[in-house]
Amino acid sequence: MSARPALTPLAASLPATVPFVGPEALERQSGKPFRARIGANESGFGPSPKVKAAIAAAADHVWKYADPENFELKAALAQHHGVKAENIVVGEGIDGLLGLIVRLYLSEGQTVVTSLGGYPTFNFHVAGFGGRLVTVPYRNDREDIDALLEAAKRENAKLVYFANPDNPMGTWWEAADVQRLIDGLPETTLLVLDEAYGETAPASAIPALDVSRPNVLRMRTFSKAYGLAGLRCGYAIGEAETISSFDKVRNHFGVNRVAISAALAALEDQTYLRSVIEQVAAGRARISAIAAANGLSAIPSATNFVAVDCGGDGAFALKIMQGLVARGLFVRKPMAPGLDRCIRVSVGTDADMDLFEAELPQVLAEARA
Amino acid sequence: MSARPALTPLAASLPATVPFVGPEALERQSGKPFRARIGANESGFGPSPKVKAAIAAAADHVWKYADPENFELKAALAQHHGVKAENIVVGEGIDGLLGLIVRLYLSEGQTVVTSLGGYPTFNFHVAGFGGRLVTVPYRNDREDIDALLEAAKRENAKLVYFANPDNPMGTWWEAADVQRLIDGLPETTLLVLDEAYGETAPASAIPALDVSRPNVLRMRTFSKAYGLAGLRCGYAIGEAETISSFDKVRNHFGVNRVAISAALAALEDQTYLRSVIEQVAAGRARISAIAAANGLSAIPSATNFVAVDCGGDGAFALKIMQGLVARGLFVRKPMAPGLDRCIRVSVGTDADMDLFEAELPQVLAEARA
Repeated sequence: MSARPALTPLAASLPATVPFVGPEALERQSGKPFRARIGANESGFGPSPKVKAAIAAAADHVWKYADPENFELKAALAQHHGVKAENIVVGEGIDGLLGLIVRLYLSEGQTVVTSLGGYPTFNFHVAGFGGRLVTVPYRNDREDIDALLEAAKRENAKLVYFANPDNPMGTWWEAADVQRLIDGLPETTLLVLDEAYGETAPASAIPALDVSRPNVLRMRTFSKAYGLAGLRCGYAIGEAETISSFDKVRNHFGVNRVAISAALAALEDQTYLRSVIEQVAAGRARISAIAAANGLSAIPSATNFVAVDCGGDGAFALKIMQGLVARGLFVRKPMAPGLDRCIRVSVGTDADMDLFEAELPQVLAEARA
Repeated sequence: MSARPALTPLAASLPATVPFVGPEALERQSGKPFRARIGANESGFGPSPKVKAAIAAAADHVWKYADPENFELKAALAQHHGVKAENIVVGEGIDGLLGLIVRLYLSEGQTVVTSLGGYPTFNFHVAGFGGRLVTVPYRNDREDIDALLEAAKRENAKLVYFANPDNPMGTWWEAADVQRLIDGLPETTLLVLDEAYGETAPASAIPALDVSRPNVLRMRTFSKAYGLAGLRCGYAIGEAETISSFDKVRNHFGVNRVAISAALAALEDQTYLRSVIEQVAAGRARISAIAAANGLSAIPSATNFVAVDCGGDGAFALKIMQGLVARGLFVRKPMAPGLDRCIRVSVGTDADMDLFEAELPQVLAEARA
């Protein structure tokens, strides 16, 4: 055939890429499985045993679509957070919800403000709907609240993305500072406050939920501390009318039934969550100690990973990352100027951390040679 | 606050609704669980025991994101269908893929052709991206291939949706007729050929796969005969460049890891699939017999459900549906003029069918009273 259906001009302009190379692709390239999977901020501790039991039990129900209203999970989340069910929308991970937010609010050419080096999947969605991305550099390895505010006002931004704690640096702001961002934004600018790592942050970093504000969405997930990345279940908390807008475009039967069962069980087992949070804190300390023992400095983190400053430029940190990958340790690294001097190491099990401790000196020696 | 972030004009124009009321919502209204869930064309036979085992085993891996390239499942599907992995894209059910197709191809105001009474979720996506929907009536309870062709040419449609076998009527066309549609469409019109019920159709209804054509996408799912509706795993088969376009916009980490494991196990157990297909055929025959015993006529079906002509108008069929629902049998019905004289009953287990047989006479008597 000579002709073919034409993509929209916007779709035609987009690259057909997989924005993140998955660890599985690297394993296929090398022909060897990774010995430690500590590169995607997954939780090597896994979910609660009660969650695993709920997943196994859910096998008897997978022939049924999930409730399109996600009634039961929203009710449980509402109780957990002290809001109403109408203040919650459940989706296929934060990634899926970010796409819906961009689609709902952003017309082609309109402006979005984020940090240079911030979450690439959000940027992928902005590009995918034809948005104009304005970025603000990090300052002292933190997202720069004042600069974000200034840019949002100057550009009359439709959306501002802010992660607290931050990915990929792990840094965080105290609640009062985040509140300053919330209060300072124009009422017509929607703040996408990504709190994917909220559970591992100090309580003092999380502003009180205020579901009276139509221009703030708080993004949460079961992928990180709850250990359910593979199940794709995230949610947003916000003002009721803002939340109801998702019903205009969401894939109503899109949330996996096993994910719902697992999320309910995970939410119920807060004792397990606390134990994971303690293990994550210990793991961060261990990564910092390993870094220090090798003459490197770890950046303080409130997440389940640590950005380790390799003490050189981006090319040097890239060598470290590649050296670790070649030795079977899956890690990633920030790529933005300034941040790119770091590698990013997820907290893993003791065995994972042992491997990191064992391999880092040799990798460093080779990179320095 | 007085102001709020503005939705896009398109989003603002859309209703915030759940297009299908789920059975769970009806159960919450009545305060009673359904005794038979035979309304959403799910498979009451469930998945293979091997699939259930795979789901339980996957619980140990849910802390990991799924491979964003879905390499393993695409390879298995490619082998199963005799195509290459580059001819397959995996997504969050056919529903999710339909949304991506509309987004990739349809600019606001452009035209889509489908049948009046065809799959509402496809129409939901068309509305959600601002498309103009042109509908063609069914003819003798089948989608009207010639009228679809005529409308597609007349309207210079970007997309044509055609389900074979059809939902909600269960009817089908032979492969030669479908091929006539494929061959007759302009090269610039994309045919979305929904074969969600392909496994339960006679082999003679499914045209040979031809992945050289850029303007045909064949939609398949694990939701129906494979019994995995709750896991959200569908795929499209097509020409390599058409398939690669999905990478521009898809949620790369969106497919559930448990769904992937389950789909691989389901695909492997073709013996189980064949047993389900036999049970479905027997169930269709039983629904037809029950209908006949009550003076109603069942429409011949190639799917896992049967549309039963209630012999009156839409209001009468609605009464039948409501009567069954009130007695704890979840069924649905077509709503389009002409089709609305029917109720739609999914094949269920013997116990489900026993209930349908037991309750229908009384429901009919009440509706006729």
